[in-house]
Formats: sequence, C-alpha cells, structure tokens
Amino acid sequence: MKYVFGVDIGGTTVKLGLFDEKGELLDKWEIPTDKSDKGKNIVGDVCDSIRKKISDKGVTFSDVLGVGVGAPGAVDEDGVMTGGAVNLGWDVFNLRTAMEEKLDGIRVIAGNDANVAAYGEMLKGGGKGHKNVVAVTLGTGVGGGVIIGGKLITGATGAAGEIGHIRVDDVETAKCNCGHTGCLEQFASATGIARLAAKRLSADDKASVLRNADTLDAKAVFDAVKEGDEVAVEIAREFGMYLGKGLASVADVVNPEVFVIGGGVSKAGEILLTFVEPEFEKFVFPPCKGAKFTLATLGNDAGIYGCAGMILSENS
Amino acid sequence: MKYVFGVDIGGTTVKLGLFDEKGELLDKWEIPTDKSDKGKNIVGDVCDSIRKKISDKGVTFSDVLGVGVGAPGAVDEDGVMTGGAVNLGWDVFNLRTAMEEKLDGIRVIAGNDANVAAYGEMLKGGGKGHKNVVAVTLGTGVGGGVIIGGKLITGATGAAGEIGHIRVDDVETAKCNCGHTGCLEQFASATGIARLAAKRLSADDKASVLRNADTLDAKAVFDAVKEGDEVAVEIAREFGMYLGKGLASVADVVNPEVFVIGGGVSKAGEILLTFVEPEFEKFVFPPCKGAKFTLATLGNDAGIYGCAGMILSENS
Repeated sequence: MKYVFGVDIGGTTVKLGLFDEKGELLDKWEIPTDKSDKGKNIVGDVCDSIRKKISDKGVTFSDVLGVGVGAPGAVDEDGVMTGGAVNLGWDVFNLRTAMEEKLDGIRVIAGNDANVAAYGEMLKGGGKGHKNVVAVTLGTGVGGGVIIGGKLITGATGAAGEIGHIRVDDVETAKCNCGHTGCLEQFASATGIARLAAKRLSADDKASVLRNADTLDAKAVFDAVKEGDEVAVEIAREFGMYLGKGLASVADVVNPEVFVIGGGVSKAGEILLTFVEPEFEKFVFPPCKGAKFTLATLGNDAGIYGCAGMILSENS
Repeated sequence: MKYVFGVDIGGTTVKLGLFDEKGELLDKWEIPTDKSDKGKNIVGDVCDSIRKKISDKGVTFSDVLGVGVGAPGAVDEDGVMTGGAVNLGWDVFNLRTAMEEKLDGIRVIAGNDANVAAYGEMLKGGGKGHKNVVAVTLGTGVGGGVIIGGKLITGATGAAGEIGHIRVDDVETAKCNCGHTGCLEQFASATGIARLAAKRLSADDKASVLRNADTLDAKAVFDAVKEGDEVAVEIAREFGMYLGKGLASVADVVNPEVFVIGGGVSKAGEILLTFVEPEFEKFVFPPCKGAKFTLATLGNDAGIYGCAGMILSENS
C-alpha cells in the first residue's frame, strides 16, 4: 500500500491527513500553528508531525508517494510563496523545497489554501464528477479556486482565482482590504452581508426580526430569510445580485460546468443558491448559461483532500 | 518530413496553411466561403482543398500529422459546434468528425476561431515565450482566448474567453448584441470606440480634428491622438478605462503573464497600450499586478498558426 499526506496550514491550526493511494482518508489530526518568530517553526513542526505519523503507523518511507501542502498566500508552480504569508508571518521563500529538505526528499507539492480546497471539492465534494469547476469560498473574505480540465490554475504569480476582487460596483466608496472599491468581497463575504444588512436596516423603519438580532451577521440574515422576513429577503437578494454578477464575469472567462459554493456563509444551505443562480443567469453571456450551482460538502477537510489529490494526480 | 494543416474558416474566406513539423509556415492560400444552403459545402470545399494540396506537393498521406481547424462559434473539446455558427449558417454538428470522414481519418482538432488565433499568438506572436496568455481581439466585437500552462481553455460549452461580455458599466442603457447592457464590447470594440467618440463630440463644442473626420472610427480617434488632439485623448482614455477594468477582472480569475492585444483596433500601435495598462494596474487585485501588455504580431495568420499548433502540441 502507498500513502499520501495532505497538510492545510491555517492561521490557528495545521490540519493534517493521511490518505491511501485511492485518496481515501485514513487518519486526520491537527497541530497548533506556532506563529512566533515570524512563523519560522511551522515547517519544522509540520514535518516532525508527518515523521511521527510515519513511525507510529509503521509505514515505510519509500511507500509515501508525497506530501501536498496548502498555505494562506500566493504560491507559484515551483512552490515559492511569492508574497510570503501575512497571517503566518512568513516572508517570501520556497515552501516546497523547505519541506522536502526536512522530509529526506519525499516529493512535496505546495499550493494556495483556497485553491487546494477548491481542488478537494472537485475531487470528492460538491464538484465531484466535473473537470471544469470554480470553487467560491464565502468566508471573512471571498476566495476562489479555478479548475480547468481537472487541473488547478495557479497563474503567473500564484494569484489565479482571487475572484473576491472583481469589481462589481462603481458607486461604492468604502475601501476593500485590497485598497480598491466595489470588490465582490465587499458584498458577498460574511462581512459584506453584515454590511448590506446594517445599511438596509438603517434605510427605513420597516419591521424585521433582524432589528432584534443579537449579532447582525450572515447567519442571522439567512435564518430570517427562512422565516420569511421581508427585509432579510431584500438583503439576500442584494447579496445574490452581487455574487451572481461577479460569477457571471468569471464564467465569461473560464466557462465552468459548476460553481461550488463553500465557506461559513454557505452553511445557510440550498436557499442561498436560490438567490445567486437566477442573478448569474441574468448577467452571464448567453452561451455560458446553465452552469450548475452546488454547495461545498467537505467543510474544513477540503484542503487536506485537495493536497493529497495534487500528489495523486501526478501518480495516476 | 511531417506536415500539418491549419484552417481558419471565416465568413468570407477560408484561410489555409501548410506547416512543417516545427510549425514553420511552408505555404498559405485562401478559398471563398460558400455560405449557400446553410453552409453545407464548406467542409467539403476545405477538405478538397487540403487533398489537392497534398497531391500537388507530392506529400504522402501518412506524413500528415493532422489538421487543425478554427470556426466562428463555440466548439467543445470533442469538436462539436455547440451553438452552430451563425455567420456560416451552420447548425449544431461535430466539425471534427465531419472533416475526419472526408480526410480518410487524418486526425482533426477543432477550436473556436478567436481561441485558436490566441493560441497562435502565444506560439509565434505577441505572446511568444509565455505559457499563461490572454489574447484580446478588438474588432467589430471584443473576443478573447485564454491559455493556461500552454493549453487553450475551452470551457464547459466552448465559450471560455468570451471576455467581451464582462459587465464593465452599470449605467449604460444601450443593448449589446448579446442582449445585455454594459458589456466590455460596447466600449472597447471598433464599434464601441466609434460610439464613445460620437457621444463625446455631441457633449460640447470643444475643437477637435475629429469634427472633420470622414469616418468617425477607431482609426480616426487614434490618428487624432497621435496629433495631440485633446478630445481624441479623452475618448482614448475612456476606452482605456473600460478595457483596463475588464482585463483586471480577467486577471483576477486567471492571473496571466501577458495580455496580447490584436484585432483591427490594435493597428493604432503601441500608443493604444499606454491608455490601457495604467488603468489595468489601477483596477487589478494587487498580487496580479505587473502583467505585460503586447501587441499581436501575426495579423490574419494567427488562426492558421494556432490551428497547426493544436496538432503539433499533441505530437510533441
């Protein structure tokens, strides 16, 4: 039997998975992310944890096909973190070779965390059975991953799939974290939905259960939608318009078979898609119509599945 | 020696090229496009012309590696014209198998005309030396082709690269040919620039050489820009803003190394890029900055080069 490791490095914890050669998850665990000293211990901690698992399981080193690793930053095809990783304290360095050195030359492939999660969703989650997939992560921000012909697109500087920064509004004056205005992320992320909600509630006095919400967040909005709250439905429609419009631009470029919607906001469930899909159809170039919309199904495991998949696709 | 044919089917003429196995053009010629009877003679005419060239040149059939063909419509990976080809009168059919039948099984690969031209520009033209290229054709409309890792992206329905229909303006009320409003094509095509010019001239009485232009088209605008005409510069700036904004969205999705600008409008030369590049930099997600802008160099031959290249990439 051959083995593969998937490693998803996050700002708080590192998720690790041991997979068999068919991509089935055999074991998963976490270690804390040590961000002290500009995160210089992280690579060593991860490699120690992999070595320990190899030893504990009695696996032969030569039976490990490789380690796939995802990190929160742009990663080019050689494994270089081209802009470092702000959330980990990392400067620019080659993550792949750094890990290979500590793992006695076991093959390592590195990718951006959102991209590898997208790849995982294509392989085993909401995009299963498709080869042209755009995964959209609606979390604190809006991230994405573009998969064409079963292969993840990295881009010239490792920044492909950064669809949260497509401009979808010309009149917005508030600034996005990236420094621009009118980015998709400002309307379709968890933060964006909370902003749309606050703005809508302050516009008039129309009755809404949202006025009594403990926290005016995406969850509160979609919970209220499910109760039939009219103001919440208006907010969800505005969110859907922006996301549909942004994804229409994505489809004009890469024409995917399916959009897989994940991230915290997607916990609202299928009802979320009913606000997005009709708006997408309204904005997209007619020959690109009919793309499917599904929900991500792997949750926090998408990254480790995608990481393992990067190694397995080389060996298939 | 091995040979490859490239065939670019247009609404008026079909361009054909005979290439060697290194992709060097040995001979090129044209035949008229017979659009009578819903274009049913076109495939036969093309195949007859190829057979005649094989015979005239004394080439052995088995030395022909294949025929690449581009056609004006969406083409999926199997060679199916998924929406037919309006300009040729074609309904939905499989262009690849239709040609293979008439060519005694010589390998055929079919693609969208704008996409294969983009591929040609990557191989031998303005994108030479790069593997991640977006080619932009500014003609009557705005077309495009997206190449990632040296491979052309087709998309789920063959409509990838239709970047002319990215929405770049929310207030436009005039309709695009696709039925939507605010499409990039409405501002950055030859037609679009003429429209921007007419609108600007009617806005006030500011002096401009354009007021005496025989035809108020893209050429007149950029000729006037070269003379330092202030009104023409304003029009070019507006064009550049829209194109820069649209291409920024493209970069957020696929993060290319280079944009290759072609089509009739690009005959204005390098000065055109000076209006686009700064606007692109202004709108694009910062990690995607620094993409190069070049002009297409193959003109009308881009299609046949790209068609030949599709066959050669299979044999390399």
